[in-house]
Amino acid sequence: SVNPDIASERQTPSFSVEELTTLLDGGVEQTRIRRAVAEAIESDPVFSRENQYFQSQNERYEAAVRKGVHLQKKIREMGWTEDGPEQKYINRALAGDVAFLLQHVFMRSISVLGSDKQIAKWIPLARQYRLIGSYAQTELGHGTYLQGLETTAVFDTATQEFILNTPKISAMKWWPGDMGRSATHTVAFAQLYIHGKCYGIHPFIVQLRSLQDHSLCPGITAGDIGPKMSFEHADNGYLLLQNVRVPRENMLNKFCEVQPDGTYERRGSQKINYFTMTAVRISVISVEVVEPLMKACTIAIRYSVVRRQSKLKPGEQEAKILDYQTQQEKLLPQLAAAFAFHFIDNYLQELFNKGYREMQKKNFDMLPELHAFSSGFKALVTQHCTSGVEICLRACGGHGYSLLSGLPSLYTKILASCIYEGENTILLLQTARFLIKCFMEASTGQSVPPSVTYLAAVKPGKCPAKNKLDFLRPDIYIEAYRHTAARLVSSTATKLQDLIQSGIKKHDAWNWCTVQLAQAAKAHCHYLTVKNFAETVERLETRAGIQKIMKHLCDLFALHGIFSNAGIFLHDGYISGAQMDMVTASYLDLLPVIRKDAVPLVDAFDFTDKSLNSALGSYDGQVYQRLYEWAQKSPTNKMSPAYERYLKPLLHNTLSKL
Amino acid sequence: SVNPDIASERQTPSFSVEELTTLLDGGVEQTRIRRAVAEAIESDPVFSRENQYFQSQNERYEAAVRKGVHLQKKIREMGWTEDGPEQKYINRALAGDVAFLLQHVFMRSISVLGSDKQIAKWIPLARQYRLIGSYAQTELGHGTYLQGLETTAVFDTATQEFILNTPKISAMKWWPGDMGRSATHTVAFAQLYIHGKCYGIHPFIVQLRSLQDHSLCPGITAGDIGPKMSFEHADNGYLLLQNVRVPRENMLNKFCEVQPDGTYERRGSQKINYFTMTAVRISVISVEVVEPLMKACTIAIRYSVVRRQSKLKPGEQEAKILDYQTQQEKLLPQLAAAFAFHFIDNYLQELFNKGYREMQKKNFDMLPELHAFSSGFKALVTQHCTSGVEICLRACGGHGYSLLSGLPSLYTKILASCIYEGENTILLLQTARFLIKCFMEASTGQSVPPSVTYLAAVKPGKCPAKNKLDFLRPDIYIEAYRHTAARLVSSTATKLQDLIQSGIKKHDAWNWCTVQLAQAAKAHCHYLTVKNFAETVERLETRAGIQKIMKHLCDLFALHGIFSNAGIFLHDGYISGAQMDMVTASYLDLLPVIRKDAVPLVDAFDFTDKSLNSALGSYDGQVYQRLYEWAQKSPTNKMSPAYERYLKPLLHNTLSKL
Repeated sequence: SVNPDIASERQTPSFSVEELTTLLDGGVEQTRIRRAVAEAIESDPVFSRENQYFQSQNERYEAAVRKGVHLQKKIREMGWTEDGPEQKYINRALAGDVAFLLQHVFMRSISVLGSDKQIAKWIPLARQYRLIGSYAQTELGHGTYLQGLETTAVFDTATQEFILNTPKISAMKWWPGDMGRSATHTVAFAQLYIHGKCYGIHPFIVQLRSLQDHSLCPGITAGDIGPKMSFEHADNGYLLLQNVRVPRENMLNKFCEVQPDGTYERRGSQKINYFTMTAVRISVISVEVVEPLMKACTIAIRYSVVRRQSKLKPGEQEAKILDYQTQQEKLLPQLAAAFAFHFIDNYLQELFNKGYREMQKKNFDMLPELHAFSSGFKALVTQHCTSGVEICLRACGGHGYSLLSGLPSLYTKILASCIYEGENTILLLQTARFLIKCFMEASTGQSVPPSVTYLAAVKPGKCPAKNKLDFLRPDIYIEAYRHTAARLVSSTATKLQDLIQSGIKKHDAWNWCTVQLAQAAKAHCHYLTVKNFAETVERLETRAGIQKIMKHLCDLFALHGIFSNAGIFLHDGYISGAQMDMVTASYLDLLPVIRKDAVPLVDAFDFTDKSLNSALGSYDGQVYQRLYEWAQKSPTNKMSPAYERYLKPLLHNTLSKL
Repeated sequence: SVNPDIASERQTPSFSVEELTTLLDGGVEQTRIRRAVAEAIESDPVFSRENQYFQSQNERYEAAVRKGVHLQKKIREMGWTEDGPEQKYINRALAGDVAFLLQHVFMRSISVLGSDKQIAKWIPLARQYRLIGSYAQTELGHGTYLQGLETTAVFDTATQEFILNTPKISAMKWWPGDMGRSATHTVAFAQLYIHGKCYGIHPFIVQLRSLQDHSLCPGITAGDIGPKMSFEHADNGYLLLQNVRVPRENMLNKFCEVQPDGTYERRGSQKINYFTMTAVRISVISVEVVEPLMKACTIAIRYSVVRRQSKLKPGEQEAKILDYQTQQEKLLPQLAAAFAFHFIDNYLQELFNKGYREMQKKNFDMLPELHAFSSGFKALVTQHCTSGVEICLRACGGHGYSLLSGLPSLYTKILASCIYEGENTILLLQTARFLIKCFMEASTGQSVPPSVTYLAAVKPGKCPAKNKLDFLRPDIYIEAYRHTAARLVSSTATKLQDLIQSGIKKHDAWNWCTVQLAQAAKAHCHYLTVKNFAETVERLETRAGIQKIMKHLCDLFALHGIFSNAGIFLHDGYISGAQMDMVTASYLDLLPVIRKDAVPLVDAFDFTDKSLNSALGSYDGQVYQRLYEWAQKSPTNKMSPAYERYLKPLLHNTLSKL
């Protein structure tokens, strides 16, 4: 039965939940396919996550391998194809809790970096799982800074082999997924040496384990790196190479080749490869970053209409915690952010598809802008969504802290997204470098990419808003974001130039501006996110109900951003103190409006109970009953040897000398 | 051997590390005792935390019980007494990773709430561990709002017993520590009913398990609530009561008694009880909140001088990551905060000791102020330290995410401190209520407690700073904090009054101001923390080296607070945009200055390697070697059945139909 406290929340939504779901999915057909995939996977007991919160790292790994193998069978049974529309929904339904995710990365790196001959040899083997692939780039001593990798590959003309080595402990490969226990092969990145000369980082296919009995190959030391905050299912591994020989053909050689005599030849442009790395950053946003925030919002908001605590009015029933302004102010901005980032993700996907088409036509003009987009948005979205999930967790009090709420595992997992695919601070500084360059070019009248033309028009000014309602006008708040982003870029560029002109070396000057550069890059991406949200709302004009609630969410996202970063808007007086009070008033006024639709809004994300796997977040709102039922299944409720061994002697006072 | 990259950091500290350590401890003798306790505990293999990161919840529980029992023996052997100076260092050395922590809470609640007769009966039993106590207050449906608890205790005049019941599922006791598997007794809070009339919440001693065989007593259903984000060692429990009868003498009756005929009598003032609850909030700050932040700083800063990544200057060796401004800006403000909160904790301890002495003299005048202090600072310090630990974790990149870094467990544990002993938002609003009341009184000329007299003098004004060096003057920044806190209290009070005068009901008006009220309470506590830090630095005049570096840290703490909350300082023009640029300049200038002493500063916290339990944070800086050694011990490196069961059939293509 449905808890009446949550049922009442669904009585009068201001919009059609189903219509919003299909909008989020991108169409009725997409919704149908997504649900069909979820149904196929969730109804299959092999994929069950029922006891996941009770499992050890070993149990999680074994379950992931079992699921990984079973998934191949399932895909075949269901007739899902590799390029079919089902693929992304399979990932969504499994929530990443499956082995062999690196198989795709292994295959993609061969497709992008390998010659046709190499593709023809390796891709079919990988596709048929005649081998299990991994991707060994990160080392103990090096992550985002690839040039610093220390693994070596020395070409031996005598045997026509590369000899791979881990020259020191910091050069060990460390973190690669599926490598600790499963993989038979990997693409390993190493500094190429020919006749004593270093040619930089190159990719090599290296066999790790026997295809017969899975024993480690000669010269290979490999294992699991142990417990992590999450990703218990994944065997992130270490790899130590001692004179491991691979044939000349195992260097991926689409862009360069080592001839039998050791001559090194470069060919073609690496730009498409560079583009692929950039695109990967964007591809993770939807499933790995935005969906976890949507799930966290669903759990926290549903719980907050069921949880009653204290009284709003004396003499009345205890209030639902979502009726408190402070709870609304924690959760509803996160909900608005989930929509904002869903829409910016759609925008980025389209932009990258367009970029890909251009690059296939050998037009690489968009590349610097796309790189800046991918770096900056990866950082902004992962940072924002991670902190959003944490806010949802904390907003559920003690019960949010139980693993059974589902929130801790969402948090510990999304946190990793701030680090992998490029550490966020470094990425923001890459975006900043692009912004500074464009700003300098724009100020000398040169043409710059479309997303940064606004930098050319930095000028002092005042926000024209006269009352709090003016701050519900997208033109007003978009302009405030634009002005502020441009001001931050411009003032940091000025500081940088001043430092250099005062005689400080360029790299030192850069370092001394990086805190502000990162801030400017964030402001730029935040501005584009607000702008894109407002433009998306505008395009919804044929769907009045949806448009209205999306407009509220867009306003909330924009005003929350101004409210919580007030300093950068007030700094040059663009927004005055009095106007900031209007922003605050409009911002707080929106909370009770959106609160009315909060449950229908998260219902529209359309997560099944199984995919949420949360005692707090289920559709029926039977929170306490479920917490109790789930807790009883915990292995901590089996008889413990602690009583006989320690408690009994203590209580019976038979411990020696006590 | 010590890594030369960390050894070089210790060559020229600007102060005496040992002197700072003794200052933090409160004297040479304290340092000696602390080290002796740590040595006694860490040298005992029973207390080893060596394989902790590999253990399951059951293993952690069993280890905690083993340690809890062994600790009693150790205390006796060492001759440590219950009120001796060693007690707090025992907790520190064990890092809370031990069972029976609730025994103290059980005993304290009897001492505070029980009659002399009850104390004489129960305390010796608890002290000798003839029973294991717990404290059952929180329920599935109610936490901080105690009046809402639903457990009932009905007095039965016929049998002279109380009949305890869990009338509905939300009334189950949920979360009490040591209750899931260990406790034999608990102090349970329930609504007292006599002849059908409810007298509110009262405490009852309830036996849960047999002292003979540990089986559950009649009418008791109890167990473990399952996995949590941390506290794996603790058997947080649930408890369902069905017609559980306890004798009349089991109601703790210092403040009230039920006569045999059911007459209810109140006696004495409950204020001292109220004070105790308040004081508990403060007592957790040092060991459970500030020390974890100090540990996280130690780990992250030591790692950041060993980790080298990318180049600051072309052609040079890769730079230590602590030489990057962005890394300094992440870590050094957390280090400064650790000192700020250590000093405010000292201040609060003294204040509460003074308050305790007054209350024993029946002078309860300080109580409202102390309550506001304990609520506000508990919220501010837990919130700040939790986010500080998270920043340290993220600042260590991928390796910070490994449990072996020690950072994830510090984070997941400190996070709970934002929830237990009162949810932070609710606590901030309690402080805000005090501030608003005092503000109103002060503005009508009434006298108010010393910490809030400044609220009487709210007036517009401008910060007098003329250049960036002025912002290194404590009088300048303290005044900025004071002005801002007073302005936030005053403007929120005005909003509240305006709403009420416009006809909105008081409780609604209050709810609509809570976001700003919480902000005002935070600003008040932040101001007092800065002020106390500056005053502490002033008192260090006889220790020049220490005073100088503490002054830098105090400045950094203050300016970081202004930089990151710029909006509230700029809002009314007290600080202008140009002055904010000076704040930023001085703030960023401090980073490289403090960076030079960063390692000596964390060395002064004097954590042993064993107490840090971190592959990244050890004194010798041998990070990579230790990560590798520890990872090899992980149970994930034992042979897994996954190969024979799943991988082999997959690779050999013998899976049916694949």
